[in-house]
Amino acid sequence: MRTVLSSAGRETVIGPAEPFCIIGERINPTGRKIFQQQLRAGDLSRIEIDVADQLAGGAMVLDVNMGAPLADEAELMVRAVKLIQGRTDLPLCIDSSIVEVLDAGLAAYQGKALVNSVTAEDERLAAILPLVARHGAAVIGLPNDEEEIPAEPHRRVELARKIIDVATSQYGIAIEDIVIDPLAMPVGADTSLVGTTLETIALLRDEFGVNMTLGASNVSFGMPDRHAIGAAFLPMAISAGLTSAIMDARSPQIVRAVKAADLLLDRDAWGAARCAAIQAAQASQAAQPQGGP
Amino acid sequence: MRTVLSSAGRETVIGPAEPFCIIGERINPTGRKIFQQQLRAGDLSRIEIDVADQLAGGAMVLDVNMGAPLADEAELMVRAVKLIQGRTDLPLCIDSSIVEVLDAGLAAYQGKALVNSVTAEDERLAAILPLVARHGAAVIGLPNDEEEIPAEPHRRVELARKIIDVATSQYGIAIEDIVIDPLAMPVGADTSLVGTTLETIALLRDEFGVNMTLGASNVSFGMPDRHAIGAAFLPMAISAGLTSAIMDARSPQIVRAVKAADLLLDRDAWGAARCAAIQAAQASQAAQPQGGP
Repeated sequence: MRTVLSSAGRETVIGPAEPFCIIGERINPTGRKIFQQQLRAGDLSRIEIDVADQLAGGAMVLDVNMGAPLADEAELMVRAVKLIQGRTDLPLCIDSSIVEVLDAGLAAYQGKALVNSVTAEDERLAAILPLVARHGAAVIGLPNDEEEIPAEPHRRVELARKIIDVATSQYGIAIEDIVIDPLAMPVGADTSLVGTTLETIALLRDEFGVNMTLGASNVSFGMPDRHAIGAAFLPMAISAGLTSAIMDARSPQIVRAVKAADLLLDRDAWGAARCAAIQAAQASQAAQPQGGP
Repeated sequence: MRTVLSSAGRETVIGPAEPFCIIGERINPTGRKIFQQQLRAGDLSRIEIDVADQLAGGAMVLDVNMGAPLADEAELMVRAVKLIQGRTDLPLCIDSSIVEVLDAGLAAYQGKALVNSVTAEDERLAAILPLVARHGAAVIGLPNDEEEIPAEPHRRVELARKIIDVATSQYGIAIEDIVIDPLAMPVGADTSLVGTTLETIALLRDEFGVNMTLGASNVSFGMPDRHAIGAAFLPMAISAGLTSAIMDARSPQIVRAVKAADLLLDRDAWGAARCAAIQAAQASQAAQPQGGP
């Protein structure tokens, strides 16, 4: 299955036969105090650095989240989308929990975006899927609902099925345009959680063959040596069927792990993507003093 | 299933609920010209450095191969086993293609060793399994025979079944003491080979539940950035069911990938092994000028 995202000038395809799709997580004020202050003051200049760093690191799509408390998130999202699309032709992932912000971002966006995200809650499905359909976008579906984030992989599969059924039958969204998030939790909270995620990935692949993405940095949250954990987690998840991740595209260690996984799983028969990534990682390491948080 | 190896003073257990078993590959003259010359001259002093480096890196078992052309390999093996057992209490893996060398090494060894290796060839089974049984050792079984190294995972499983059947029914060797090698080939030769290995691992786990080991460095043979490839391959293989590898225990990047995989797959609930590995990797990096090849 191929999920085709685009900007005005370029396509990025998510799929099991494509190189693993690296979605850069960095343009997000969560946990970034200075960036939050800048956004509240209407200063978006930091985004240019974040775009450049993630491009250098090997991002193929950029997630854009403007969730700064007390700011006009919709206006910031529109400005950010326009700014970023003036700097790069990478497709974007419009990320907000607020429906109006998603709508504003999608309206400002040129191309076919990825929407981050909808849950299996009836209210959220009814609010967000019409936007996705109207803007011709793709959407990330999270298999949790009003009651729970299921601990059990099969229950996650059932909630994914609900999202897929509603999106395709009620809103005419193609299954290719639904990217399911198997839900990655911090291993520091409970060491059995990664096994649950890996099992969910394998089940979703076998059951629907859909594309999948997850927040890879969640896994190592709160742990020492986070990059080593991410660099081990992603090859496991990729071999189970994960086709994309929202991740730290600025980490040479993690990006190289992804490129090595592509090579090992025969997704990059000519090694071209891998060579480019090694070069980019070296360039990004050389440039690190500028590119810090 | 638990494969228990021992020295006079210590046990190392290979098993799916144990931390992944790192078997250090370094004590092997293949591709090491100076070490070969030293061995031919009867000089085993280099082994002491290799033992120390691999201990510092996190090895849990040490492979010992004395395959230097024109040398008396049996005599070297006996001397090496005694030397190493005087320096460390890690269990050893006695590695030779020559039956007499295996016999001499096992006779000199104190504890329960791992024998590397037997194939599914009738002649090799008949020559090596009696030694394994007589010395109360464990053995690595390679699923290839006179005719082929099977390209097809199910055929490898059938040859593994032959080894297991012969060893258990004709020689009384417990299935716990048979460690199957799913056969890892260079990805540089053919990018589909890693998929074959991963599929074989999953089949062997589901079919027999046996412990498994493989030569992890084979995968990255001839490729640039070998450590990144090894560091991505092993987490994939471990999540498919691999419980051990003969590998470069001196590479902090690869050892950390293994420790992160243990953490992510809940084999190291207290993080103790991981912390020790991070410290060892730091110590080994600090000591690298002495420890080079």
